[in-house]
Amino acid sequence: MDFGYDARTEELREQLLDFMDSHVYPAEPVFLQQLAEAEDEWAAHPPIMAELKAEARKRGLWNLFLPGEHGAGLTNLQYAPLAEIMGRAGRLAPEATNCSAPDTGNMEVLAQFGTEQQKQQWLKPLLEGEIRSAFCMTEPDVASSDATNIGTRIERDGDHYVINGRKWFSSGAMNPRCEILIVMGKTDPGAERHRQQSQVLVPKDTPGVRIERSMHVFGYSDADHGGHAEVVFDDVRVPVDNVIAGEGEGFAIAQARLGPGRIHHCMRAIGMAERALELMCRRTSERVAFGKPLAEQGIVQHWIAESRVKIEQARLLVLKTAWLMDTVGNRGAHTEIQAIKVAVPEMATWVIDRAIQAHGGGGVSQDFPLANLYAHARTLHIVDGPDEVHRRSLARRELKKYR
Amino acid sequence: MDFGYDARTEELREQLLDFMDSHVYPAEPVFLQQLAEAEDEWAAHPPIMAELKAEARKRGLWNLFLPGEHGAGLTNLQYAPLAEIMGRAGRLAPEATNCSAPDTGNMEVLAQFGTEQQKQQWLKPLLEGEIRSAFCMTEPDVASSDATNIGTRIERDGDHYVINGRKWFSSGAMNPRCEILIVMGKTDPGAERHRQQSQVLVPKDTPGVRIERSMHVFGYSDADHGGHAEVVFDDVRVPVDNVIAGEGEGFAIAQARLGPGRIHHCMRAIGMAERALELMCRRTSERVAFGKPLAEQGIVQHWIAESRVKIEQARLLVLKTAWLMDTVGNRGAHTEIQAIKVAVPEMATWVIDRAIQAHGGGGVSQDFPLANLYAHARTLHIVDGPDEVHRRSLARRELKKYR
Amino acid sequence: MDFGYDARTEELREQLLDFMDSHVYPAEPVFLQQLAEAEDEWAAHPPIMAELKAEARKRGLWNLFLPGEHGAGLTNLQYAPLAEIMGRAGRLAPEATNCSAPDTGNMEVLAQFGTEQQKQQWLKPLLEGEIRSAFCMTEPDVASSDATNIGTRIERDGDHYVINGRKWFSSGAMNPRCEILIVMGKTDPGAERHRQQSQVLVPKDTPGVRIERSMHVFGYSDADHGGHAEVVFDDVRVPVDNVIAGEGEGFAIAQARLGPGRIHHCMRAIGMAERALELMCRRTSERVAFGKPLAEQGIVQHWIAESRVKIEQARLLVLKTAWLMDTVGNRGAHTEIQAIKVAVPEMATWVIDRAIQAHGGGGVSQDFPLANLYAHARTLHIVDGPDEVHRRSLARRELKKYR
Amino acid sequence: MDFGYDARTEELREQLLDFMDSHVYPAEPVFLQQLAEAEDEWAAHPPIMAELKAEARKRGLWNLFLPGEHGAGLTNLQYAPLAEIMGRAGRLAPEATNCSAPDTGNMEVLAQFGTEQQKQQWLKPLLEGEIRSAFCMTEPDVASSDATNIGTRIERDGDHYVINGRKWFSSGAMNPRCEILIVMGKTDPGAERHRQQSQVLVPKDTPGVRIERSMHVFGYSDADHGGHAEVVFDDVRVPVDNVIAGEGEGFAIAQARLGPGRIHHCMRAIGMAERALELMCRRTSERVAFGKPLAEQGIVQHWIAESRVKIEQARLLVLKTAWLMDTVGNRGAHTEIQAIKVAVPEMATWVIDRAIQAHGGGGVSQDFPLANLYAHARTLHIVDGPDEVHRRSLARRELKKYR
Repeated sequence: MDFGYDARTEELREQLLDFMDSHVYPAEPVFLQQLAEAEDEWAAHPPIMAELKAEARKRGLWNLFLPGEHGAGLTNLQYAPLAEIMGRAGRLAPEATNCSAPDTGNMEVLAQFGTEQQKQQWLKPLLEGEIRSAFCMTEPDVASSDATNIGTRIERDGDHYVINGRKWFSSGAMNPRCEILIVMGKTDPGAERHRQQSQVLVPKDTPGVRIERSMHVFGYSDADHGGHAEVVFDDVRVPVDNVIAGEGEGFAIAQARLGPGRIHHCMRAIGMAERALELMCRRTSERVAFGKPLAEQGIVQHWIAESRVKIEQARLLVLKTAWLMDTVGNRGAHTEIQAIKVAVPEMATWVIDRAIQAHGGGGVSQDFPLANLYAHARTLHIVDGPDEVHRRSLARRELKKYR
Repeated sequence: MDFGYDARTEELREQLLDFMDSHVYPAEPVFLQQLAEAEDEWAAHPPIMAELKAEARKRGLWNLFLPGEHGAGLTNLQYAPLAEIMGRAGRLAPEATNCSAPDTGNMEVLAQFGTEQQKQQWLKPLLEGEIRSAFCMTEPDVASSDATNIGTRIERDGDHYVINGRKWFSSGAMNPRCEILIVMGKTDPGAERHRQQSQVLVPKDTPGVRIERSMHVFGYSDADHGGHAEVVFDDVRVPVDNVIAGEGEGFAIAQARLGPGRIHHCMRAIGMAERALELMCRRTSERVAFGKPLAEQGIVQHWIAESRVKIEQARLLVLKTAWLMDTVGNRGAHTEIQAIKVAVPEMATWVIDRAIQAHGGGGVSQDFPLANLYAHARTLHIVDGPDEVHRRSLARRELKKYR
Repeated sequence: MDFGYDARTEELREQLLDFMDSHVYPAEPVFLQQLAEAEDEWAAHPPIMAELKAEARKRGLWNLFLPGEHGAGLTNLQYAPLAEIMGRAGRLAPEATNCSAPDTGNMEVLAQFGTEQQKQQWLKPLLEGEIRSAFCMTEPDVASSDATNIGTRIERDGDHYVINGRKWFSSGAMNPRCEILIVMGKTDPGAERHRQQSQVLVPKDTPGVRIERSMHVFGYSDADHGGHAEVVFDDVRVPVDNVIAGEGEGFAIAQARLGPGRIHHCMRAIGMAERALELMCRRTSERVAFGKPLAEQGIVQHWIAESRVKIEQARLLVLKTAWLMDTVGNRGAHTEIQAIKVAVPEMATWVIDRAIQAHGGGGVSQDFPLANLYAHARTLHIVDGPDEVHRRSLARRELKKYR
Repeated sequence: MDFGYDARTEELREQLLDFMDSHVYPAEPVFLQQLAEAEDEWAAHPPIMAELKAEARKRGLWNLFLPGEHGAGLTNLQYAPLAEIMGRAGRLAPEATNCSAPDTGNMEVLAQFGTEQQKQQWLKPLLEGEIRSAFCMTEPDVASSDATNIGTRIERDGDHYVINGRKWFSSGAMNPRCEILIVMGKTDPGAERHRQQSQVLVPKDTPGVRIERSMHVFGYSDADHGGHAEVVFDDVRVPVDNVIAGEGEGFAIAQARLGPGRIHHCMRAIGMAERALELMCRRTSERVAFGKPLAEQGIVQHWIAESRVKIEQARLLVLKTAWLMDTVGNRGAHTEIQAIKVAVPEMATWVIDRAIQAHGGGGVSQDFPLANLYAHARTLHIVDGPDEVHRRSLARRELKKYR
């Protein structure tokens, strides 16, 4: 047992921290300024982002998330502390390093399950950061936590699939540079529970694909990242070659995707909490009320201490989960992945909420990233399966030990 | 001891509930639609609001908040359950009945402390719902929970005051119909702690008044209610007659205002929680996952039961506080006002948060009022003094009993 | 709506508070001393208790719990604040005033459902405080929260019932002055769910009644109150006249008993929390660490303020419940009875736990009543139905509103 | 980074688990039975304990806690998982393996700071498990969390020290086999804050040493472990050679002792939580209410899942802390030691409390170890410095990063 990072991780952490300090943090106000000056928030391409991407790539801080030949080849355990650092500036750092969801998940899926042609056509430009992508899974009309509820139909018609359905919270889909959608739907509703679904590649400009509206998260549109779209598929036709890994593989692909996806979310959320804690410490050290800095109030010290204690525990569980995924595989790490999926958002929303409180009115405003961080952390209790589904599954496994 | 509402309250509750069912709830989607269609969200006057106001006034549901001859003449205990009902549809009902903050507080101050001329000029059109107003108290540069921190200066120069300072979260100030600001500042920084401040009336179009920007609350601009402005006062000159109740009275007026203001916020927050609980019950009864409605899951039932238990307790404490204000005055109810100021937001954010969770992705989106309710309830932990200030003061009073 | 106590209540409160100050609190150390000096803790009759009873009776502070002609004739709303005061010194005050569980419930049952002969034989000496009684309901072998689980059989054999079964947590049964047991069991296991049970009177000295052992609560035997017995009924024969209210009425009697029983527990628990808060304030005002009294630490003030806020809310809900029981009956107050059953123990354990923490090592010891109060409050989450059963039932009623 | 145990740890875990299964768990009911049969609980030596000790020693499972030549020579990281296993049966396993507090701390102190003679006289028989010891630090009259508060005086008089003072919660001191006390007191009240205290060895039979009484913990006397004594030192004279490490070293020794002491407590507490979780799973799988096992209720599954998630996080933080102590020393691990000191008791009391609730009445009784575990875990919030002191210190270190 050893709690130190390995040399490769230390080296990359140092490089990434340097990039954050020298480029990313200074770019935050510039980015917001350029966004604010854009005429159309949905078409804004703040030039600073292109500069950051170029710089990150030059430094070799690119596609760090992706194991294997296509990416940086890091293990989950090596990538985890880097994702945490990116999460501290979640609006810029992940995209700057081509490590932002949902592209990461889509690239993983294509790298693992894609045909050569699919890789050429979609994986390559994604790896280059030239295009963006979206994942269309959740549906407005059903509780999507139960995959058998999915209503979107993918019906074969000769050499094509015909897709009909309605998705929402398809993040990134309204980015003008988003060109490809991965759509989950049922090819065989009569099949066994986990063989009903398939995933197909749908170019965004395919006739019948209709972006209906932008879903807000709290009051945020997240336009700078392509928002969260409600998308209608109305007799959308794509060639049968667009299926990923074959009919009936949709559920298995989703499972394969969700493991790393969840751990990435969790690592970034730890970075979010660290950022909030730093802001809480800085703010309360500066603000004075009733004759002394807020930081000298017992209740503020309670928040700071609890934040530190909660963050440390959560980070270790995430790191252990990464280690398990590397050593015994995603299935072997199933329980731990579920554990971090409930533990980390709980920790993060708590820490960020206390940081908001320590900032008073400023905390809920646009002057600090806290309210935005909160909104994002809050959704982590819901996306990729709500807390309740994971807790139930965790409990059942625990109970099985005694039968 | 008697826990039943009196006849006047029952009658008004019935009338208000009827108005809500017949007009307010049906107006909610219309209002959102009209807002969405407006070219400029800041200049939008959804016509439906004017219709609601006319209807409410016709029904005598007008200025219910205001005791005495100028208003409906209700006691706090009579008004409280009505404010709760309004809080269920907080975006429409308070304004429709001319009972929305910060106008309510401003009208109370003018009714209680204003000169005849001040009443004629500003109270009258406010009571008619013809103009809106704002209260400029909180400042970005200091912890405003400590009133001695206030930096805005109000200096006498012959027959005028010259005002210099910066305020933020001046709610409603960007409403195009907002015509008058009440500004808190120091006329005598050398005076005794609670005699340094004064409040003066500043017409919004006075030279030197500059609306700098809109402060967001979790991504929301609240533009339909005039937003939350950052306002700069740059050598703003107003006649000395514009002072309210005399120099040095600013702190006392603020205290007088905050008692009723806090209880109104709390009553509406209880209505918000009731609305969230209703939505939680409805949604979980309809949604099916893993073979049964969500409402049959034990954890969802836990949330619903806890919500009911928390709401009932909080409501009773608010009602008792209202009763105390009526019977022993605001000072006599000081402890209870502080108690509800911390208890109610805690209850409301908890209930709304669980309702969000029960709604999944929909819960954080614009499709339900929940995320917006959450953002509003969350700010109640901060406005009018953060929880921590009230808890400290409460504890000190408790400790005094044993000295 | 009126939050003031009525004249009768105020008068009795004053009298009871005077009795507490002049006799009960001073008796606490004497009682503990006399207990400690007893050779057998199970046979100890600290003489001070007899003195307290005589004094209470002389002052007319006797059988205050019992409505109607047999008792003081108070309403629930009048009795509630008195029970709270008794709860502050729960080891002495309830017994001193002949208001201690389970005798109270047993007397209520006999007064309401007993035959003349049953009243003569058992109710009369109980009302006089001459004998004690126990209620044998919970069983070790099943989850007793589900009444249909009850395994004790009461079988008719001519003019007698033959009882077989095992009960535990029969509080008071090991008191040497306990003479009568009310036993719940099934007379007709094949009947409709709520008609299977009956309650019969079983004199403790009936052959076949065997006290097996004392159940502890945390490390407490509660010997001074007759402990919590495990009782075996082995072919115990009693005349059929000993049935209360007829065969099949057991469940209905239990329901009738539990309403007032729960509210009494809750009122006393509020008194327990008040006692803990007082101790917390006193202790932290006296103890100095790191240069100032503990009471000046922010976190301690947080506990004190939260305790006050939680207690106030819980008390109001209990009082409203009492008022409902008086005005619309126990059935009409069903939801509120369940609400206080979960809300009050939660509040009480929280407050007492914080008071323990404020006392350091002393808090868990016998030097303060806190650990004992905690143990008692903790069991309130379990007795008369665990929290979970009440929450589930509450949630179902709430959900029904929307069907 | 590597989350697997090393070979030595795995081997010892296996041996210890085997010893637990084959000897310790089966001994639990025997031990309780032998205790119950003893005439004097304070003089009881259940023979089963001697058998367990002999067996443990035979298996080499002896003094595992002690690094260096005198003990098993394990690192903290190697010992931690073993202490966790012992904690699952905390009443037997630590003593059986000669790893029970406060002897462990006393042996560490003697091994590290003792003179040869002190080691011969006291360390040797302690290592052999022939005698027991106590540590007299906490005082009833002051808040001992602030070491400068300590009132016990150790005054030099020629070749002797004369000790006067009062201690309480001196655990184990009433064990008839306890022969030696380590007493903390002030030799120089005028010295610099951390140089005022010294620690001296006081044989229990020294004239003037008076065991006044047994302090209870939630009703438990813990007599089988020698209880928690209040001890008076009344002109107690010991030779100056009995000082440990020299005058003025008391605070430093205490600090050196507390690091390992806290981590041992924490590891055992994790074992306690694991035991509680196991019992919760077993009980709820067996008990049926309302037609299904309790384990199928959503709220019970929530408890089980949360317990697992909380335990995993806490364990990892403890293991990391152990690793830090091994690699950078106790001072370097200071923050983490404080973090586990607050995190682990919070986790443990929560898990055990939920297990109690799942057991109903049985949970608070002597039929399951849960209430006793709770009482023990609850004291961990207090012993070795209350949570609040550790949180404050943690917060200050965190805040320093930004100055």
